[in-house]
Amino acid sequence: MQYISLRNLRFILHEVLDLEAIRRGDRFGDFDREAIDFSLDAAGQLADQYLHPVYTRMDRDKAYFADGKVHVLPEVGEGLRAMGGSGWLSAAWDEAYEGQRMPLTVLNAGTLVFQSANGNLAAYGLLTKGAANLILEFGTQELKDTYLAKMAAGDWQGTMALTEPQAGSSLSDITSYYEEQEDGSYHIYGQKIYISGGDHTEAENVIHLMLARKKDGPKGVKGVSLFVVPKYLPGPDGGLIDNHVTTAGIYGKMGQKGYVAAHLMFGEQGTTRGFLVGEELRGLNHMFLMMNEARIGTGIMATGAASAAYYASLKYARERSQGRHPGNKDVNAPQVPIIEHADVRRMLLFQKAVVEGSIALLLQCSLYQDLHTARGDDRSHLLLELLTPIAKSFPSEYGNESVSLAMQVMGGAGYTDDHPVEQLFRDIRVNSIYEGTTTIHGLDLLGRKVMMENGKAVVYLAEEIQSEITGATGQTAALGAALGKGLEEMQQVLQHLMQLARKEDPRVFLADATIFLEYFGLHVIGWMWLRQANAAERTLDAGENQAEQNFYRSKLQTARYFFSYVFTRTAGLRRTLLAANRITLDTDPELLM
Amino acid sequence: MQYISLRNLRFILHEVLDLEAIRRGDRFGDFDREAIDFSLDAAGQLADQYLHPVYTRMDRDKAYFADGKVHVLPEVGEGLRAMGGSGWLSAAWDEAYEGQRMPLTVLNAGTLVFQSANGNLAAYGLLTKGAANLILEFGTQELKDTYLAKMAAGDWQGTMALTEPQAGSSLSDITSYYEEQEDGSYHIYGQKIYISGGDHTEAENVIHLMLARKKDGPKGVKGVSLFVVPKYLPGPDGGLIDNHVTTAGIYGKMGQKGYVAAHLMFGEQGTTRGFLVGEELRGLNHMFLMMNEARIGTGIMATGAASAAYYASLKYARERSQGRHPGNKDVNAPQVPIIEHADVRRMLLFQKAVVEGSIALLLQCSLYQDLHTARGDDRSHLLLELLTPIAKSFPSEYGNESVSLAMQVMGGAGYTDDHPVEQLFRDIRVNSIYEGTTTIHGLDLLGRKVMMENGKAVVYLAEEIQSEITGATGQTAALGAALGKGLEEMQQVLQHLMQLARKEDPRVFLADATIFLEYFGLHVIGWMWLRQANAAERTLDAGENQAEQNFYRSKLQTARYFFSYVFTRTAGLRRTLLAANRITLDTDPELLM
Repeated sequence: MQYISLRNLRFILHEVLDLEAIRRGDRFGDFDREAIDFSLDAAGQLADQYLHPVYTRMDRDKAYFADGKVHVLPEVGEGLRAMGGSGWLSAAWDEAYEGQRMPLTVLNAGTLVFQSANGNLAAYGLLTKGAANLILEFGTQELKDTYLAKMAAGDWQGTMALTEPQAGSSLSDITSYYEEQEDGSYHIYGQKIYISGGDHTEAENVIHLMLARKKDGPKGVKGVSLFVVPKYLPGPDGGLIDNHVTTAGIYGKMGQKGYVAAHLMFGEQGTTRGFLVGEELRGLNHMFLMMNEARIGTGIMATGAASAAYYASLKYARERSQGRHPGNKDVNAPQVPIIEHADVRRMLLFQKAVVEGSIALLLQCSLYQDLHTARGDDRSHLLLELLTPIAKSFPSEYGNESVSLAMQVMGGAGYTDDHPVEQLFRDIRVNSIYEGTTTIHGLDLLGRKVMMENGKAVVYLAEEIQSEITGATGQTAALGAALGKGLEEMQQVLQHLMQLARKEDPRVFLADATIFLEYFGLHVIGWMWLRQANAAERTLDAGENQAEQNFYRSKLQTARYFFSYVFTRTAGLRRTLLAANRITLDTDPELLM
Repeated sequence: MQYISLRNLRFILHEVLDLEAIRRGDRFGDFDREAIDFSLDAAGQLADQYLHPVYTRMDRDKAYFADGKVHVLPEVGEGLRAMGGSGWLSAAWDEAYEGQRMPLTVLNAGTLVFQSANGNLAAYGLLTKGAANLILEFGTQELKDTYLAKMAAGDWQGTMALTEPQAGSSLSDITSYYEEQEDGSYHIYGQKIYISGGDHTEAENVIHLMLARKKDGPKGVKGVSLFVVPKYLPGPDGGLIDNHVTTAGIYGKMGQKGYVAAHLMFGEQGTTRGFLVGEELRGLNHMFLMMNEARIGTGIMATGAASAAYYASLKYARERSQGRHPGNKDVNAPQVPIIEHADVRRMLLFQKAVVEGSIALLLQCSLYQDLHTARGDDRSHLLLELLTPIAKSFPSEYGNESVSLAMQVMGGAGYTDDHPVEQLFRDIRVNSIYEGTTTIHGLDLLGRKVMMENGKAVVYLAEEIQSEITGATGQTAALGAALGKGLEEMQQVLQHLMQLARKEDPRVFLADATIFLEYFGLHVIGWMWLRQANAAERTLDAGENQAEQNFYRSKLQTARYFFSYVFTRTAGLRRTLLAANRITLDTDPELLM
């Protein structure tokens, strides 16, 4: 497997995170270490067989729109049904819905495998799972009975249909609308754009989880409800009846060319029926369940691409010889593999630090979700809320840089389509835009999450980090000290920002929210690296053989790299945040010329 | 013109740089302010007419290899001949070769216009110019008479043929070779890869400036000579005779799909003749003339793409409405243009800071070249040598980030091919690889340029920067102080590195050369911004009208932005450099897993 390390996933799950805490309850009791490893291996086999082989082809033979249909490769359907058939899409559900009550922590470890093998294909399945989860959570029994099994099998595609031409980041401005009929049914009108998985030839049916506004209802988010809008209405005899959801076309994208983004129209060519999900006028609220899941999912997608690029460039760096060491003037000496060059190692270590730091955070977030599910734990819920903007944006933003360095390691070869890295570079870029741009997550973090319940989540997080710092002794003491110093400095930054929040226009307080997002995120990833380093140090000498010992040493070395080369960026970001000189806010648009 | 600001180019040329210094001599006396403005306007018209309209099409209808030929659009030939016919390719030459003795400073301002309009097309011309310059400098009269006119006209394509499968960054390892014949002529054998402009249907002939090794000669660079190797040998009657340079194919690249990178074979299908350029066995030395020009050219190419992306995203930000200001809960209020959002302004200011900072540096480098040409000025020569790695790598590295932010401003739209930014994002990426990767330039800067003549170049640069800091008063005093503090801190970093150079293995000293390159580069660009700010402050109130005053205010505001948001990165880079903990060097390759 050349796109992700299962050994690393096992390390995070068994040696860094405390999964015992969720096993204690009834819900996840079945998932002991053996069951988890079995699941991961199964994910790897599925990915090797169905997903990875078709990654490049999904780009070359990209999705296209013709004769009113969106054509994708047959292998897309095979992969989708393989994920469904082996239970991955419904794994988290109860037995009543053919689920295994798999913890999200384990499920998302599997998702990381799928996303690193082929993000374009895996995404169809994950989106379907997310849409189905929304029906499971808020839908009527009839909706569950009608849709869940087909979606879980990968036969029917699910989507989240939010964006409209005039409403991208600003969801309160959607204008698609619904009208309740005399018989209590709903008709849907309007259009949606950039709908991922919105239509394709490998799905028997497409089930849109769609936001629409009540006709003549309240303005803003208070007028919005959530509907199931299927492409075809399931008939009583198992047949499918056209529901007049028309595909106007698909977008030509820089990457993810095998993962369709469609432009859809509703109610234009006939009646489009929708089925209310949850409470009327609480649509955006309900949708947040799927959006939060999709945000973690986006972080996973980005991390998967960065992981695949890391292993591709690592392989190349071991095989490709070029140049000699500085100071060696002997022209008769053979060239050395480029992994011998310090700067190539720097670029590989950066990728490893980003990929494995992101994986740790994504699985930690999943664990908080599981703890909340298993125990109704408020602390876990608040921590998950606080960390979600980081889990979405750090892998996306640093993932872009990570894949770019994979390309740089490979030089000219990396820029050509002889290697997968150029596709990964194009594919990963959209994650900074999906599910709320980085700007939106900065505003969410600083304007909402940091402030919620009087800053309680930040206090909880600081406690978690502090406890890890306290545990940092021996080889990790210096890393703990670096993170501790960072935390102290962050206190000062937060005080400064809170002062702005009290005294100034919200625009001033939030002007540098994106900078704060990166600054805060580096501390969170620093925490993840300290945890990995502490865990590695504990077991360093217990490694069964050289390879195992090297695994732990590699964790310690990458943690050192992270604190010396990446975490150091906090110094400049802090300077910017403390300056708070309103430069961006006060820039007259006329001066942008 | 939506891809570059001519007003900004005039500002740099007339108000920031001291072109009077080169006008005093005979060589460039003709180029007064009026002549310069006339040239810039002419470049703009040519770019509007021939280059910009075909930029997108060169990507969609990309170059392809069929029937042994590399097919490009006819418009490529038209554009190339338009640049040639209007004198741009030979503008710097003497009248004897139909030149205008145009200063490089002016020529490169024109080149910036071409590169921002269509980097794929402009590159064919610039490469031809570079190859012809090498013939002009080192070639025999016969070579000049045979090749220069046709190349200057844009009829014959020029290339630099260096890279081989086993020799990319390591040019001393080339194995293409030549054999002197009894009649004193040379036969050439071997293959070259990634040869830009290496072959295409719109060139009547392709003239390779090629490095080859003397058969059974010395190993390493001492065995390498430079040749003109034409695709067709010009016959006595003006006819063209096959010289057996075979095109094996072209590379599928992520971007610059209209700008061919070919795989060429020499002497395989018949005799390939080469014509020695300059002294035998001094080939790499001679080639450095073209490589240094190509490095500045790469900086220009990157800057052009970043400029085009900046203006595309700026236009979008003015036209696209989305969301409301933080704190505004009125759902009846109309959405605001996204340029109203502080974070969008941040992303636009970043681009402006990178683009205009890079332009200033590139033209400053060109001016140092002109001063050296006009006066044999050693100081200018050393400064150019020192700044070339920055002029190549800063626009490339920060240009990637800049275009990525252009895409981010545009959200989902920027990721689609409905807008030019996704192509610019793909196109610009290769500049960090062309003409020496960023790693190579880090090694060049720290290992060679900083050390040359006992650090004289660094002393000269510090003098230049200090004089600008001294001139920073009033509104720019704080910026000057920030740069001054940076310079002081850099002294400390340099002392630390010099100590390593004395005490340690060169591998230790050079391990973080790429980090130093960025750190040093930010100071250089800071100098460029301080100069622009000082110049703007001097004329601020003299602006003839509101637009002119806004122009100067925009310079001051962007300089403030640069020092608060970009220059601050030096803080983290400095921490990394001072740590010098040998982390990358000491990482056992086995730990990269």
